[in-house]
Amino acid sequence: MSISLIVGGGGFIGYSLVEVLLQRGSRVVVVDNWSRGSKDNLTPIIRRYADQITFETGDVSNFQNNLALLDAINKRGHISEVWHLAANSDISAGVEDCSIDLKDTFMTTYALLQAMKVLKIPILNFASSSAVYGDMGDLLISESSGPLLPISNYGAMKLASEALISAAAEAYLERANIFRFPNVVGTPATHGVIYDFIDRLKINQTVLRVKGDGTQKKSYLHVSDLVKAMIALSDRSLSAGQKLSLTNIGPIDDGVTVRWIAERVVERVNPNAKIIFGLGNRGWVGDVPQFRYSTDLIRSYGWRPSLGSHEAVILAINQIANQFDF
Amino acid sequence: MSISLIVGGGGFIGYSLVEVLLQRGSRVVVVDNWSRGSKDNLTPIIRRYADQITFETGDVSNFQNNLALLDAINKRGHISEVWHLAANSDISAGVEDCSIDLKDTFMTTYALLQAMKVLKIPILNFASSSAVYGDMGDLLISESSGPLLPISNYGAMKLASEALISAAAEAYLERANIFRFPNVVGTPATHGVIYDFIDRLKINQTVLRVKGDGTQKKSYLHVSDLVKAMIALSDRSLSAGQKLSLTNIGPIDDGVTVRWIAERVVERVNPNAKIIFGLGNRGWVGDVPQFRYSTDLIRSYGWRPSLGSHEAVILAINQIANQFDF
Repeated sequence: MSISLIVGGGGFIGYSLVEVLLQRGSRVVVVDNWSRGSKDNLTPIIRRYADQITFETGDVSNFQNNLALLDAINKRGHISEVWHLAANSDISAGVEDCSIDLKDTFMTTYALLQAMKVLKIPILNFASSSAVYGDMGDLLISESSGPLLPISNYGAMKLASEALISAAAEAYLERANIFRFPNVVGTPATHGVIYDFIDRLKINQTVLRVKGDGTQKKSYLHVSDLVKAMIALSDRSLSAGQKLSLTNIGPIDDGVTVRWIAERVVERVNPNAKIIFGLGNRGWVGDVPQFRYSTDLIRSYGWRPSLGSHEAVILAINQIANQFDF
Repeated sequence: MSISLIVGGGGFIGYSLVEVLLQRGSRVVVVDNWSRGSKDNLTPIIRRYADQITFETGDVSNFQNNLALLDAINKRGHISEVWHLAANSDISAGVEDCSIDLKDTFMTTYALLQAMKVLKIPILNFASSSAVYGDMGDLLISESSGPLLPISNYGAMKLASEALISAAAEAYLERANIFRFPNVVGTPATHGVIYDFIDRLKINQTVLRVKGDGTQKKSYLHVSDLVKAMIALSDRSLSAGQKLSLTNIGPIDDGVTVRWIAERVVERVNPNAKIIFGLGNRGWVGDVPQFRYSTDLIRSYGWRPSLGSHEAVILAINQIANQFDF
């Protein structure tokens, strides 16, 4: 039976993806450097699907490492596809020090592709990001929107990865599926606006300080919907000769403001806490203040999210509050 | 007097750019690893402008090297701007071995930006490429065309570089000017379709074998027009708050076919030579078969090329034939 290799599978999105792939009966190998991901995240899954899942520790930003690791896995059972989720998820850290995004977000893509080329692994599924679009103001952003001018090194290295995958699809891959993620919420949370707010309220239950004036508006998708979309897109037949698909994944609505999220977090965790907003509509360098995301393409394939931005955020607040024992 | 640093200034485009900057009275430092560029190219210029130009040898794909080199230059006179022309210009070589484009085209951008950040060098002018657009078929390609799906590692690493520059403009550069080049012709030629044809006729004067069926159609700009456009764009005032400009540079026409170029080359070099075409409309993996390039934006700034594709190719054939002693 062929193997689905989930690179960065120990992280937030990896957890949900691995679970659904195992439920579908796939044989899964999770590779992670466990710097941000954790095997603990996957413990409940491991118990249920022990015969379908194995784990590897590896730094996938190095080609020679990848060649040795993927070759060894290939010898236990053919790797039919790679899901590449490994990245630096801390956008602010990457703005300060670009070498983090270079290594963890871009060189992982480069070095995985080089190993896949040598080992003739045919399919790559790639977790890209709406951050590739940069700040497009009021524009309703579709897959054909341009120019692509990311404003964070995270977005830059995701776009750089897409570009390399596109060239690889032309030259040697059988198929590449690029998914541009919106903001994704759910558990096991390790970062993101909801996580940060609840984390701050864990330290100081009476005051929630918000970076920026709270008017930043973005759409949010629950991770359960995201993973269903990724799998639906990877299952989809492409037209003859087409080797690459590129698709925005996101909810249908225009999203919610940071202010609305802060208010809902406070309601759930401590209704007496006071919210104090900062200045300006960018939370940090590299933050996009507002964001309108067209999901016409994926909806034309028949996909619908089960939760809109509001419902996804409410569910995630509850899940993350539970994670923090609130 | 402040210094203009021309990285990759020993190459084909560097020659013409350096000449015009010197004519304008600029103080110029040329940095090159001299792997593809040559100081010989610049000999006629050096004689005329000896007091304005100096040379450095350096591998700019390494951050620590760049920091030491740029810091040393900075101490002799403040570097006010960097023109980044360094890249692997052999597209086919980069498709075979991606590590060439990684190091010479992308890591040069990364490592230059990191050094500019530390040394607070405010302005970057970047030689990007129409290769970032990939194969857009019949579409008239403007700066806002998307999605950007390059089909060569060269195009991928140029797009990756643009992405990183965009994030740097958001975070620390005062200004970045990205120029998307069309196919550029002229001397001192080191590569390109005209160079290849004449090079082959130097070896075998009776037969010219053309890769592909000759129907590939592209627009060509003469390097003298390209350099004038780059300088005009870098001189242009941006609107308040704008830190990044991105502009297609190209002729106004739809271009010429490979067949037409082959016929003109044979006319000039040996009218009795027989032209034999290959199959398919891609000369090699990563070659874009046809290409329609909108230059509305740069023309809206008042710029016009003095030569169209036909005239530019004819002039370049003559110049390169002379270079080959035909």
